Amino acid sequence: MSKNLTTRSEDYSKWYNELVVKADLAENSGVRGCMVIKPYGYAIWEKMQAELDRMFKETGHQNAYFPLFVPKSMFEAEEKNAEGFAKECAIVTHYRLKNDPDKPGKLMVDPNAKLEEELIVRPTSEAIIWSTYKGWVQSYRDLPLLINQWANVVRWEMRTRLFLRTAEFLWQEGHTAHATREEAVEESEKMMNVYADFAQNFMAIPVVKGLKTETERFAGAEETYCIEALMQDGKALQAGTSHFLGQNFAKAFDVKFANAEGKQEYVWGTSWGVSTRLMGALVMTHSDDQGLVLPPNLAPIQVVIVPIYKTDEQLSEIAAAVSVLTADLRKLNVTVKFDDRTTQKPGFKFAEWELKGVPVRIAVGPKDLENGTFEVARRDILTKEIKEKEGIAIYIKELLEQIQNDLFDKALSYRNNHITEVNDFEEFKQILEDKGGFVSAHWDGTAATEEKIKDMTKATIRCIPLDAKEEVGTCVFTGNPSSKRVLFAKAY
Amino acid sequence: MSKNLTTRSEDYSKWYNELVVKADLAENSGVRGCMVIKPYGYAIWEKMQAELDRMFKETGHQNAYFPLFVPKSMFEAEEKNAEGFAKECAIVTHYRLKNDPDKPGKLMVDPNAKLEEELIVRPTSEAIIWSTYKGWVQSYRDLPLLINQWANVVRWEMRTRLFLRTAEFLWQEGHTAHATREEAVEESEKMMNVYADFAQNFMAIPVVKGLKTETERFAGAEETYCIEALMQDGKALQAGTSHFLGQNFAKAFDVKFANAEGKQEYVWGTSWGVSTRLMGALVMTHSDDQGLVLPPNLAPIQVVIVPIYKTDEQLSEIAAAVSVLTADLRKLNVTVKFDDRTTQKPGFKFAEWELKGVPVRIAVGPKDLENGTFEVARRDILTKEIKEKEGIAIYIKELLEQIQNDLFDKALSYRNNHITEVNDFEEFKQILEDKGGFVSAHWDGTAATEEKIKDMTKATIRCIPLDAKEEVGTCVFTGNPSSKRVLFAKAY
Repeated sequence: MSKNLTTRSEDYSKWYNELVVKADLAENSGVRGCMVIKPYGYAIWEKMQAELDRMFKETGHQNAYFPLFVPKSMFEAEEKNAEGFAKECAIVTHYRLKNDPDKPGKLMVDPNAKLEEELIVRPTSEAIIWSTYKGWVQSYRDLPLLINQWANVVRWEMRTRLFLRTAEFLWQEGHTAHATREEAVEESEKMMNVYADFAQNFMAIPVVKGLKTETERFAGAEETYCIEALMQDGKALQAGTSHFLGQNFAKAFDVKFANAEGKQEYVWGTSWGVSTRLMGALVMTHSDDQGLVLPPNLAPIQVVIVPIYKTDEQLSEIAAAVSVLTADLRKLNVTVKFDDRTTQKPGFKFAEWELKGVPVRIAVGPKDLENGTFEVARRDILTKEIKEKEGIAIYIKELLEQIQNDLFDKALSYRNNHITEVNDFEEFKQILEDKGGFVSAHWDGTAATEEKIKDMTKATIRCIPLDAKEEVGTCVFTGNPSSKRVLFAKAY
Repeated sequence: MSKNLTTRSEDYSKWYNELVVKADLAENSGVRGCMVIKPYGYAIWEKMQAELDRMFKETGHQNAYFPLFVPKSMFEAEEKNAEGFAKECAIVTHYRLKNDPDKPGKLMVDPNAKLEEELIVRPTSEAIIWSTYKGWVQSYRDLPLLINQWANVVRWEMRTRLFLRTAEFLWQEGHTAHATREEAVEESEKMMNVYADFAQNFMAIPVVKGLKTETERFAGAEETYCIEALMQDGKALQAGTSHFLGQNFAKAFDVKFANAEGKQEYVWGTSWGVSTRLMGALVMTHSDDQGLVLPPNLAPIQVVIVPIYKTDEQLSEIAAAVSVLTADLRKLNVTVKFDDRTTQKPGFKFAEWELKGVPVRIAVGPKDLENGTFEVARRDILTKEIKEKEGIAIYIKELLEQIQNDLFDKALSYRNNHITEVNDFEEFKQILEDKGGFVSAHWDGTAATEEKIKDMTKATIRCIPLDAKEEVGTCVFTGNPSSKRVLFAKAY
C-alpha cells in the first residue's frame, strides 16, 4: 500500500484533503459541494452518534423527526434567522419532471408542476420545529420539551471542503422549550458542557468553552455558547454550539403557555448542534504524516492483528493463537480485527492500518509462536515492543486507555502552548502570522473593532471564554477600556 | 385521559388516523404531505432501526452516506428508473433567497441564483450510488460491495397518509454490487429473508414471501422480491422489497470490473429497503379499539407500573416496593417505567398506557402491599390477574415472550383465514367484496389481464408466492392456461 501522502509541513490543507480520501473517510461526489461518507468514515461517525445519543438521553432528551422542507412563509417568520440563512438556501420550486420533447431520452422540469409556495431545504430546523411546538404546548405541564433530531441539512456554501464545509451535512439539532428564562439558559449551558465532555473524553480534543460575540452569534439567538478547538496548523475550529434563543422563536410562531397562575406567557427556547464537521476536527487534531491517528474511544477497529507467515501451516498455527487473543479482547469490549487476507503482504497491511489510524497493531510470526510473544505497536507514537502472551489482553485494554489519555494530553499541551497573551497590535499580527493559535487580547466590545481586526488579520473572535478573569485593560486595537480578554484566531 | 377513538368497525381508516395522532406516534406538519414523527413514535422506529441495523451488519453490510441531491443528468441515466420516479420528484432549481423589494420583511427566490443543472431530491439512491461505485470498483477483488444507508427520501405523493404514504419518509436502502449474477440473486433473496425474519420475530407480523409481477416491479429491476402482510381490514401491505437489478445500473453508469482472467465485465447489482411505512403496518396489524397494541420486542416501554394511593405515606411505601421490582426487571433487560406523576389519577394513567400500547401494566395499591401482591394486566387481551411478588420479575419476563408469540399467532391465524382459493371470477369479486384478504387464483401471466382485473376490482397481484405449487389451472379471468396461483388483494 503506497501512501504518497503530502506532509503537513509541505501543505497542511493538501495533506488533510488527501488523507480524508486515502483513509477512506469521505470523497467528493458528483453533486456540487456534497460529499459521500465512505463506510470507514461513517463507522467513526456512528460511534460519535452512539455516544452523543446516549449523553442526550441521559440528560432527559428524546429523539423525534421533523420535515426536510420549510415553506417560505414559515422560513421567514423569524426575521433574523431567515436573514442569516437566506443567502445559502436550496429551494424546491417544482414537483415533477417530464420527457423533454426536444431531446429524446432526456427529462425536463415540468413547468405545469410549479409549487404554489416554494420550499426551503432546511438549513436548520428552528422554524419547522417551533411551528410544531405551537400545537404541543398549552400549559406549564407540557414543559419542558426536550427534543433532539438526527438529520441532514443543506447550506449552499460556495467553497466547500470534505467534512469541514459541505453543502449537505449530517448533524443533530436539539430544540428545547421551557417555562422560564433561567431554565432555558441552564439548558444551553448544560448542552455546551455535554459537548465539551464528549470532545474531551471521546475525541480527545481539548476545548475552550465560551460565548460568541454578537457578530458571530447564531441568527435568531440571544446568546450562543460554543466549544472551540485548535487544529495542528494553529487554526481554530468551532466544534459545537448551544444557543439560548430567548423568546424569539416563541414570538415568531406564537408559542405561549398558561403558567401555574393561568396567565399566558411566551415559551423560552434553546437549540444546540454538532455535525459531521467533528470528523474534520478529529482528523486535524491527532493525525500525522503517516495517516490517521484515531482515539481508541472512537476507532471502529481498536486493534488489528497481522499474521507474518510463509506457509499455510504457519498461518493456521498463528490463527489458532490469535483466536484465543481475539476472544479475550472481545470479552474486554475491545474491537479487534484479524487481517488474514492472503492477497496482501504484511508490509502492505502495516501501511494500510497505519493510514487508517488503528490505535494498536499486533503482529505474530513463527518466532512469536515459539517464544509465546506478540509484537505490539502503538499508532500514535509509532513504537513497537515484544510482549509475553500471558496477560496480554488486559495489557492491551490498558494500553488503549493510555493512548486515549496521551492523545488528549498531547493535544492539550499543544493547545496550551498556543494561547498567547498579547497587549499590542503589532505583536498581535506577528503572533498570528508566525505562531498561530489563539491570541488572548483585550477588546473594546464593539462589532466595528472586531470587523476591522478581521479585515486586517483574518482573525475573528472565537469566543469570550467562560472562565475569563475580570481584568483592567485596554483594547489591543483601539486602546479603549476593556475588562476581559477574548480569544482571537484564524478559523476553519 | 379521554380517548374518544373511532372504532375499527365504524371507520377503519379514521380509526387509524386518530390512533396514530392520539397515541403520539406522528402528526401532519405544516408542510404538505410531510409528517412529524413524535418522540413516542420515533422511539419505536429507533428500536426497529437498531434491530435491522444489527441484522444488516451480521450479514456483512456496512453503512455509508450518499448525497440527498441527484443532478438531473445523473438521475435520467438509467431510463426505466428515471421514468418510474419522474412524476413524483421534488426539484431544486435555485440556491438563494433575497429580500422581496415589493414586500418589506418578506423573501423571494433570487432569480439570479438559478442552478445550471436542476437537482432532484432523491426518491431512491440507485443513480447517485452507482455513479459513485464506478470509482470504487476496478477488479473482482473490490467486490462485493455490501453497503446500506439510513436516509430520508422524497416522493411527491398527491394523497398522503401518516406513515403509509408521505412525501418525505425515512428508510434504509441497501445497495450491493457483485461479480456474478448468482451472487446478486442470492443477496436479493437473503435480504428478503432478513426482512421476513424481522417482520415475524420483532413486529409479530406474518408475511408472504414472493415475487412481484412485471407491472409491480421496481423501476430498473429485473426481479423484485417482496414480503406482503395483511392488515385487519383485509387489505394487503407491502412491507419490504429486495430488487435484483441485473446489470442495468452497471450499464447505465459504466461500472465494470476486471475478472480473475483480466476480462472486463459489468457488475451485478441489488437494492433493498424498508421504511417508516412499517410503523403503519405495526399499528394496523395488532391494535384495537382501545388503542395501540405493541409487540414487546418493539415497545419503548414494556412494563408500566401505576401506584394506587391516597396518602403520601402510601405512595412512598409503594415506591419502595416498586424500586425492588424495577431493579429486578431491569436486570432481565425489561424496559420499565414507574408512572408516579402526581398530576394524574390512576384511571387516566390506565387509559393513557392502554392507548399507547404498553404490553404489561402493573398496579400496586395498599392492599397489594399488605398481601405481597401485584396486579398484572395484559394489554393485548385486556386481562388482569393478581400475582405474588415472589418470582414476579421472571414471570413478567416470560409473560412478555408469551405476548410476543400470542400476537404473532393471532395475526397468523387471521392471515391464514384470509387466504381464499378461488377458481371463478364472480367468486373472486365476491370474496374481495365480502371478506377481503388475499385471493389465491390462477392468472394467465399477462399484464393486460392484471390491469383489467385491477380496473374492475381494485385488486392487484401482491405477489407470486415463492412457495406456490406447480398446478394445472386456468386463469380466473381469461380462462387461459396457468401453472401457478398468485395472490391478489386490495392494498395500501
